[in-house]
Amino acid sequence: MRGATGKNNSDLTEMNRSAVMKILQQQEVCSRADIARQTGLTQAAITKIVASMMEMGIVSEVGIITGSSDNRRSIGLKLNADRHQIIGVKFAREMFALGVFDISGKMYTQTETKFPLEENPQIVLSAMKKQIHDMLKKYENVVSIGLAVPGPYLRDEGRIAVVTRMSSWHTINFIEEFKEEFQKPVFIEHDANAGALAEWFFGGHGQSLHTLAYFLVGEGVGCGMIERGRLFLGVQGSACELGHVSVDVLGPRCECGNYGCLEMYCSASALWKKAQKYVPECLPGENLKGGETLQSGDACNAIFEAARLGNQKALDVVREIAEYIGYGCVTLINGYNPDVIIIGDVVSQGGDLLMPTILEVVKQRVIPELHTRVQIKISNLQVDPTLYGAAATATNKVLQLPSMFSAAGKWGPGK
Amino acid sequence: MRGATGKNNSDLTEMNRSAVMKILQQQEVCSRADIARQTGLTQAAITKIVASMMEMGIVSEVGIITGSSDNRRSIGLKLNADRHQIIGVKFAREMFALGVFDISGKMYTQTETKFPLEENPQIVLSAMKKQIHDMLKKYENVVSIGLAVPGPYLRDEGRIAVVTRMSSWHTINFIEEFKEEFQKPVFIEHDANAGALAEWFFGGHGQSLHTLAYFLVGEGVGCGMIERGRLFLGVQGSACELGHVSVDVLGPRCECGNYGCLEMYCSASALWKKAQKYVPECLPGENLKGGETLQSGDACNAIFEAARLGNQKALDVVREIAEYIGYGCVTLINGYNPDVIIIGDVVSQGGDLLMPTILEVVKQRVIPELHTRVQIKISNLQVDPTLYGAAATATNKVLQLPSMFSAAGKWGPGK
Repeated sequence: MRGATGKNNSDLTEMNRSAVMKILQQQEVCSRADIARQTGLTQAAITKIVASMMEMGIVSEVGIITGSSDNRRSIGLKLNADRHQIIGVKFAREMFALGVFDISGKMYTQTETKFPLEENPQIVLSAMKKQIHDMLKKYENVVSIGLAVPGPYLRDEGRIAVVTRMSSWHTINFIEEFKEEFQKPVFIEHDANAGALAEWFFGGHGQSLHTLAYFLVGEGVGCGMIERGRLFLGVQGSACELGHVSVDVLGPRCECGNYGCLEMYCSASALWKKAQKYVPECLPGENLKGGETLQSGDACNAIFEAARLGNQKALDVVREIAEYIGYGCVTLINGYNPDVIIIGDVVSQGGDLLMPTILEVVKQRVIPELHTRVQIKISNLQVDPTLYGAAATATNKVLQLPSMFSAAGKWGPGK
Repeated sequence: MRGATGKNNSDLTEMNRSAVMKILQQQEVCSRADIARQTGLTQAAITKIVASMMEMGIVSEVGIITGSSDNRRSIGLKLNADRHQIIGVKFAREMFALGVFDISGKMYTQTETKFPLEENPQIVLSAMKKQIHDMLKKYENVVSIGLAVPGPYLRDEGRIAVVTRMSSWHTINFIEEFKEEFQKPVFIEHDANAGALAEWFFGGHGQSLHTLAYFLVGEGVGCGMIERGRLFLGVQGSACELGHVSVDVLGPRCECGNYGCLEMYCSASALWKKAQKYVPECLPGENLKGGETLQSGDACNAIFEAARLGNQKALDVVREIAEYIGYGCVTLINGYNPDVIIIGDVVSQGGDLLMPTILEVVKQRVIPELHTRVQIKISNLQVDPTLYGAAATATNKVLQLPSMFSAAGKWGPGK
């Protein structure tokens, strides 16, 4: 825990393979010289590491490329990303989604399954497992499964501590349910951590980020924080529960026991409730086609649409939500000092309407030295950040321990 | 930044020396077998590492000891802590303190110097530097200087962003002032980070901690957070500014620009202001002996004393402060999920009066899974945590890079 664990030569080799793999995961094609420069290792050392990775099937040569800095011609290297496929599983209220990806973030397929809130969890889990087994049969290069669940998720116990409106799920042990079921390693993170990893690995933010905050504003409100390449987890894995940080300690009580939690003011449900009170005429009917009930995402989009058309009451509702998202950003900046905050999930679909207010709040409330440094953006991932994040959760592990997931390794598909 | 830096064999050796040194720093006497077990390295590897560290003068043998687990007799090893002395410097409002320590936390000497708020910073800095030079002459094993300053401290710029009531200090570049002045490496942290390092290295909390939060409640309010052996810093080094996290986003404006900052409700100044309003009769006269003005620490202690004697109004004031310290703990738990929160600095002197309320607030507001896991304590360091923390800031670097600070290393005293 205190960094007092020793390292031996095979740890060293694996750390260096991991460094090479992370560079190739981000840059697609690189020469050995490029990699040597970025890792700070000698070209001789890189030649040796790359040779072992080529032998393991992780890396291939792709012909001659021209260096970006020195214009010298050299052999290009690329990651055999498709040799490391991942099944990502998003578990959420009333739905789960599955996707097959590779470690470069390429998506091969995805499915989405809805279920009623009151459904027996075992029935839902069985359906989920069956779909995973089917995908494992079809995609033979799957090396790992990543699962994203709503937070706060207790990592050692394998269960979700608070799931609004889904109390029967509190006792489900996700580790037990999934670790034994498949011949592949399964990694589980809560949705906001997963989203942060998705932005980190697939978001194209470049390699210079120090601290990335993914601010999830959806059914729930949460945050995933990556500092110097690692998730900030806390002892039970439930750090950064921004949704349950109080913005008014004397405010109304939250389901979690705390008072005035941020989640109560700017989640999709909060937006929906405000809309029902102030602009019910903008909401679609509660019952959609075929008895399907209105999802809060649809409700949010209806309000955003009305606001874009100039409905003043809708604009006021949206502005109020945006102010609280802004307060959340202020807390993130003073509490975690990230260089980028990426806002994602349902509510962020109102990005163009929200951003001016968010930036105004931040500018007004944060000292200039910090607010001029931080970038605040709406996520522009092309895949649902939580599903993508489920895949990124497993990708993170593959990139940390390349040899373990190669054909020759302990968990490799060859075994 | 993404963990894509390669490691070579000398990095590996240094990491292993660091692991051995951290174990000996915590455990005083250990056998090679103990160290092998704790690091996970082979005994042959440890024998080799220890030999190099004995040659460098970092470690000595201390005769035969009996193993705690197996009762086997073996040669004991101990850190030559006095070979690595540190000068710790605490810079605060109206005073600075200096101390000479070694990396085991033993104190050799300390001094304290007061200065008026309006004093020219250059005069204060000159006095501080002169004292450091005098100590360097007297203590020849000093390998490094650690400095603790009030936060938020901007690590790249070397300056303090907000220092309440001391605006002339905003432009002082501490890095420039100190890095060139001495032949020793100087390391600077803000006070709460320094306090966290003091608790980590000298607090005797054992080696099993995952995440430690040091909650500074003094003139200012702040927090230092150590996760898996490393400070959580953020991109500019100003993460965990808990004092400027809002507990009421619609509350009064703080000097930092934010509204309803925690610092406004439970700092020493806040306690003092409340006391002036509700129990002025309990405060000592504003002017003490010899024209010295009342310090907020004295004011706080006077209120705590009155409360201990049963003064109901003083008890009410203290309870209100304790509630806000409790809210701060709730934010720390939901925001960082530490396994221990240690409350230190001026206000914590009312520990016995504060703790029942703090624990009650936490129990009421945090989900059971988290509040039953976290320990909340008052700091019981025997040295001022900020001064001790200044020394711990440099100790941290020595333990990370043992050979650099040994006689043979780049920064060693032999050079």
